[in-house]
Amino acid sequence: MKLAERIRQGDTRTVARLITMVENDFPQAQPVLKELHQYCGQAIVVGITGPPGSGKSTITDKLTKHLRKMNKKVGIIAIDPSSPFSGGAILGDRIRMQDLTTDKDVFIRSVGARGHLGGLSRSTQAVVKIMDAMGKDFVFIETVGVGQSEIDVIKVSDVVLLIVMPGMGDDIQVIKAGIMEIGDIFVVNKSDRDGSDKLIAEIEMMLHLSEDEEKKWKSPIIKTVGTDNIGIDFLWEEVSKFVNYLKESGELLERRKNRTRKEIFDLFQENWREMFFKYIGEERVEKEVNRILQQNENPYNAVKNLSTVFKEKLFKEDN
Amino acid sequence: MKLAERIRQGDTRTVARLITMVENDFPQAQPVLKELHQYCGQAIVVGITGPPGSGKSTITDKLTKHLRKMNKKVGIIAIDPSSPFSGGAILGDRIRMQDLTTDKDVFIRSVGARGHLGGLSRSTQAVVKIMDAMGKDFVFIETVGVGQSEIDVIKVSDVVLLIVMPGMGDDIQVIKAGIMEIGDIFVVNKSDRDGSDKLIAEIEMMLHLSEDEEKKWKSPIIKTVGTDNIGIDFLWEEVSKFVNYLKESGELLERRKNRTRKEIFDLFQENWREMFFKYIGEERVEKEVNRILQQNENPYNAVKNLSTVFKEKLFKEDN
Repeated sequence: MKLAERIRQGDTRTVARLITMVENDFPQAQPVLKELHQYCGQAIVVGITGPPGSGKSTITDKLTKHLRKMNKKVGIIAIDPSSPFSGGAILGDRIRMQDLTTDKDVFIRSVGARGHLGGLSRSTQAVVKIMDAMGKDFVFIETVGVGQSEIDVIKVSDVVLLIVMPGMGDDIQVIKAGIMEIGDIFVVNKSDRDGSDKLIAEIEMMLHLSEDEEKKWKSPIIKTVGTDNIGIDFLWEEVSKFVNYLKESGELLERRKNRTRKEIFDLFQENWREMFFKYIGEERVEKEVNRILQQNENPYNAVKNLSTVFKEKLFKEDN
Repeated sequence: MKLAERIRQGDTRTVARLITMVENDFPQAQPVLKELHQYCGQAIVVGITGPPGSGKSTITDKLTKHLRKMNKKVGIIAIDPSSPFSGGAILGDRIRMQDLTTDKDVFIRSVGARGHLGGLSRSTQAVVKIMDAMGKDFVFIETVGVGQSEIDVIKVSDVVLLIVMPGMGDDIQVIKAGIMEIGDIFVVNKSDRDGSDKLIAEIEMMLHLSEDEEKKWKSPIIKTVGTDNIGIDFLWEEVSKFVNYLKESGELLERRKNRTRKEIFDLFQENWREMFFKYIGEERVEKEVNRILQQNENPYNAVKNLSTVFKEKLFKEDN
């Protein structure tokens, strides 16, 4: 049986192997992804982000269990940028989610960045596709860190849940301006703690301040206590409402267009990056590096020189 | 007087303006950076990273004051990836460092990522150069977040200080494997707290486990209490020792070669990214996006198609 067929049938060992191939840039992955593409587009991708300690994993875990009761198939991707500081969190999350790993209709995988910029985003998009092709109804992307690369990745989701909690210090500072762009639904988790009403009032004020008359969707603020499973069903109702809104308003298509544009650009950049190394060669780059360090050249002219070499090789190859 | 000359003379308003130009990708910045390049290479770049709350800003602040007593000129770059969650931290840091801002031989600036991947790293490298050309003896790069992009940026430093503190939860998890690659000097800050000896023992064990026989530099572990200025002079002694080691062993040159390679590659990628948008055009990309979403094409073939178009335009332009 072909790889793509085995993945369609949910063979988790094959899926795991394909994901490893994707992460390590094995060229064998591409024909399989190509074939799987025709089965994609069904899964709704839900991004879950927020500051450390807000309970992102617990919310993901509880939402997954909620969906399993409705017999929905779920994929979970934990974005682990292989940062030295994320180790503990990832490990902890995996332990917490252990009871999900025995459920054959839940597939959990962490995705790391191997080596270069853009890698994280490209790998995540590929893993979303694989889970989509496996027939998952929902794919959760959960960030571990909250750096720029993680935010970039989460942006490609259909729905973004932003998890916050009371007592994060100077609340209003932590959830400031830029957040409006990424959060479709706000979740105030650990809402049994002091300060949750104050936090909600602050978010409401912010939402009000940045309110866009044109925008038909008003981001709701949902209170949860993830560890006690409080508010999870209500949160999911809001997610479903938002998904309906996305579909009816045409916004889902717009978001997916954005995601596809990003994917095209990431792939293009990858290809040309490989060609750069192939055509220019290490030795030629080293020559420029040495000239720059000896102050005989500046990096801007060096890149111009290398681009000329690159173009020449490219022309020659095509003729 | 020319811009580059004014920057050489330390005109902070001109410097601030140039940095803004760099961050916003204004083409006018490049000729100035080109000219400044010849004055670069003198400053030692010290990266300061570690988990949130470990006291990175306090250590940067105290080291700067220590250096000022020796009449050294200092530049400070706070990497702020414009993440919604970093707002509070940045603001707090700035307030803490306020007494430094009146010192004309200290230049503080935060650098954010505008828009696209690679931008953060490219902007930071440019700001390091500007501060170097201004005649700063030391440039500190301090991360705010600890995501992958921040780690990528800090890697280009000559020296990396890794700040940790007792009571970060499961200590050994937080400071796991990957860290060995980035930390040249370990700083156990807030070392008056319980658990600091245990933390040191854990780091020592880890360093011992991953010990490389070939490696001549054994990363020291320095105890500090940043807020009380304890251990700062001793920490700086170790930094100086390490800088001497870097120079004598030829490792400084190696690290700077790496930095230059990265700079060349970032610039190259930027240039080709711009050409992609210029030559292919939005309309042509949209055609592929629509075909992909209608399942009439997969992204891999779409990129192949676009690359063909791109090459044709490139050839035409040159003939």
